[in-house]
Amino acid sequence: MVGAAVIAAKVIGDKRDGRALDPEELRAFLLAYLDGDLPDYQMSAFLMAVYFQGLGPAESEVLVCSMLESGSSLDLSHLPGPRVDKHSTGGVGDKVSLVLAPLGAALGLYVPMMSGRGLGHTSGTLDKLEAIPGFRTSLELEEFVRIVESVGCAMIGQTAEIAPLDRRLYALRDVTGTVAAAPLIAASIMSKKLAEGLSGLVLDVKVGDGAFIVEEDQALELANRMVEIGMARGLPTRALLTAMDRPLGVAIGNGLETAEAIACLKGGGPGDLRELVLQEAAEMLLVCAVESSLEAAISRATNALDSGHALERFVRLVEAQGGDPGVVDEPERLATSPYREEARAVTGGVVTRVAPRVLGEGVVLLGGGRLRMDQSIDAGVGFEVRVRPGDDVSVGDLIGVVHARLPEEARAGLQILRESVSVGEAGSFVEARPLVSHRLGGAEWKGGAERSLT
Amino acid sequence: MVGAAVIAAKVIGDKRDGRALDPEELRAFLLAYLDGDLPDYQMSAFLMAVYFQGLGPAESEVLVCSMLESGSSLDLSHLPGPRVDKHSTGGVGDKVSLVLAPLGAALGLYVPMMSGRGLGHTSGTLDKLEAIPGFRTSLELEEFVRIVESVGCAMIGQTAEIAPLDRRLYALRDVTGTVAAAPLIAASIMSKKLAEGLSGLVLDVKVGDGAFIVEEDQALELANRMVEIGMARGLPTRALLTAMDRPLGVAIGNGLETAEAIACLKGGGPGDLRELVLQEAAEMLLVCAVESSLEAAISRATNALDSGHALERFVRLVEAQGGDPGVVDEPERLATSPYREEARAVTGGVVTRVAPRVLGEGVVLLGGGRLRMDQSIDAGVGFEVRVRPGDDVSVGDLIGVVHARLPEEARAGLQILRESVSVGEAGSFVEARPLVSHRLGGAEWKGGAERSLT
Repeated sequence: MVGAAVIAAKVIGDKRDGRALDPEELRAFLLAYLDGDLPDYQMSAFLMAVYFQGLGPAESEVLVCSMLESGSSLDLSHLPGPRVDKHSTGGVGDKVSLVLAPLGAALGLYVPMMSGRGLGHTSGTLDKLEAIPGFRTSLELEEFVRIVESVGCAMIGQTAEIAPLDRRLYALRDVTGTVAAAPLIAASIMSKKLAEGLSGLVLDVKVGDGAFIVEEDQALELANRMVEIGMARGLPTRALLTAMDRPLGVAIGNGLETAEAIACLKGGGPGDLRELVLQEAAEMLLVCAVESSLEAAISRATNALDSGHALERFVRLVEAQGGDPGVVDEPERLATSPYREEARAVTGGVVTRVAPRVLGEGVVLLGGGRLRMDQSIDAGVGFEVRVRPGDDVSVGDLIGVVHARLPEEARAGLQILRESVSVGEAGSFVEARPLVSHRLGGAEWKGGAERSLT
Repeated sequence: MVGAAVIAAKVIGDKRDGRALDPEELRAFLLAYLDGDLPDYQMSAFLMAVYFQGLGPAESEVLVCSMLESGSSLDLSHLPGPRVDKHSTGGVGDKVSLVLAPLGAALGLYVPMMSGRGLGHTSGTLDKLEAIPGFRTSLELEEFVRIVESVGCAMIGQTAEIAPLDRRLYALRDVTGTVAAAPLIAASIMSKKLAEGLSGLVLDVKVGDGAFIVEEDQALELANRMVEIGMARGLPTRALLTAMDRPLGVAIGNGLETAEAIACLKGGGPGDLRELVLQEAAEMLLVCAVESSLEAAISRATNALDSGHALERFVRLVEAQGGDPGVVDEPERLATSPYREEARAVTGGVVTRVAPRVLGEGVVLLGGGRLRMDQSIDAGVGFEVRVRPGDDVSVGDLIGVVHARLPEEARAGLQILRESVSVGEAGSFVEARPLVSHRLGGAEWKGGAERSLT
């Protein structure tokens, strides 16, 4: 096709040289790719040029729109309340979604949550849900909507009907070094979220060594991009920048994290997990204009969590999706592993660092994560990290526990756990990001653009 | 192949992030591509990353070496004199090679010249040679070497045996917006020149609107790159930066340019063409250490040109390659075209600019150039531009002549010719580059690194 070839040469050259793309040419370029009229090698050259030159707002709009319109969208407008989802850019120990979806339902919101799987050092919500015996994450859209209607929330993976152009581009980015580009990440996430028929969206952009994005300015850029895209298309969108310079919570590894999420639903669990769950639930209430102040929203979310209503929704969710609700009272029904090794402090002092990426990669080594999407995983393995940056430790104190399939894997895990924790002399300076460092977007809340809470 | 995929991910990511590539990994990456174990879409992403991040000297060395070793090399060491070639990066009206190859032979050098065809606004030596009835530019390497032995020079196109990796990469670069990257151009040119079994190489790097490279600093970078590559591999290499902010000579278009080259071989032709031919012939003598001063080299080259020895070699070259040597005495035997239109000045003043790119693109429109390599061309069409920047013109003076196949094409050509020539008020400032602005490289000549001669 000469037409597509000419447009491809123009679009690639314009982007390479930093000229604004003609929206119609960009659209034609993307559609030709979707139709198979444009080879992968031209698209990958374009994606690499975008990596270096970025995308302007009008270009982002065309990309998101083309991705969105390449597939179908849910229509949930018949639901008698706000439809809201949360998306996290991924980190180590992030089990917030498992608590947040039922908590949102308990707050009177509808949460049609579409999540992903873990890849590399980051984990995925679907893998954690599948640590519950029988839990089905692949549902037909019809069944998915029915569960959202009756329970108030449902949790599935991305379906093939949603944004197929994004799926093709993502597969190409994955093998051409063009994943880590903010405008491409933003378009990929937002095209899928815009297809969910939402009335509000909360984004959790992780920043730090355990996240996809390590630098704050890049995380802010990504968050701003996504908020802009959502708002431009009429979807109220709010974003938090949250700490991923350390793991979230204590548990890392699918089954362990699900158990920790259940503990949180019961009103317990680690303090940072509970805090982030409440912050994100509050953002959901704000973005849907159910509450207008952060304080009132937090208070309302706290009540829903502590009343047991969120736990009750979780039980109904598990039942509806074929899972064993007995895991709530007997967490040992979740995937577990036979070998455990404890790591204890060999020097006293203050914990200066818990390296999330090391632990995330450790889970892969233990067999609980994957480097390629076609790998199967063992949901029972992982780490409990009992210390956090700033904690004082004495010689012999418990630092953490490794859960492994085999004794030699347990020993290897122990080594990784020890490497991940740095202990300095008492009084050492400990650098740690605030749990929530920035808040962006959203039409409803009138507070400042940035606020640190913890 | 998992091995190639892992290496590809590493090499692309390292280049994207500006890290030095591991030489062995780069080599494996290139060989996997050559062997078909690596898809085009990964190579094109890598090439675009190189466009932005460049290549270090060690990386260039691996690329050149991989290209060179992917094919065969000539061994001309049996010849009883220096083997030297000249390569131009391409411009408008550049017919130097047609004069230089026989002039080199007349100087006692052996010139095994491998040239290219025109593409876009730039012309190619092979197309000019084929304006001579019967001239064959596709010879078996054996015949090519035999002609070099007997005549002292031969002129053919790139053969399939030389640097096939370069040919595959070039085809991919051509459709992925990655042609105009200095390290890739340098490697592409030098891999082919290194395969010619030379003892010396002269590079003519054109700079200005009519060249591939418009900015002087980029042209210098390219020239330095190529000189470095040649010297690093033991091939004495010298480079000139020459003016392409205006056409070279008067004739633009294949047959017209061949006629002009013959005029130069007879001791006539435009002054700038003669000057550049002598400069480049002198560089050949210097790079082969036949002469050690520029002045002596120019003097020797001037004698060889004016004695008629170069013309005599040209006649033998044409005969040896199947062409009609009668073109020397009867230039009308060259390809011509039936329609001519003269452009005359409509205002008086000083010529401030003759835009080479406009004229080069005009030749394509007249049917004498190509936008794709598979297009056939008419060697008879083109322009004679009778004015140069700085010339005074009066109303009615002849500016130039269009040679065309059809009356309507002649009229369109007239419009292009007029557009290409700017006339300002008498005394206007005229900006023009020196014909030769920089000299680089070469082990033999001890002069300064930069010198302007005209």
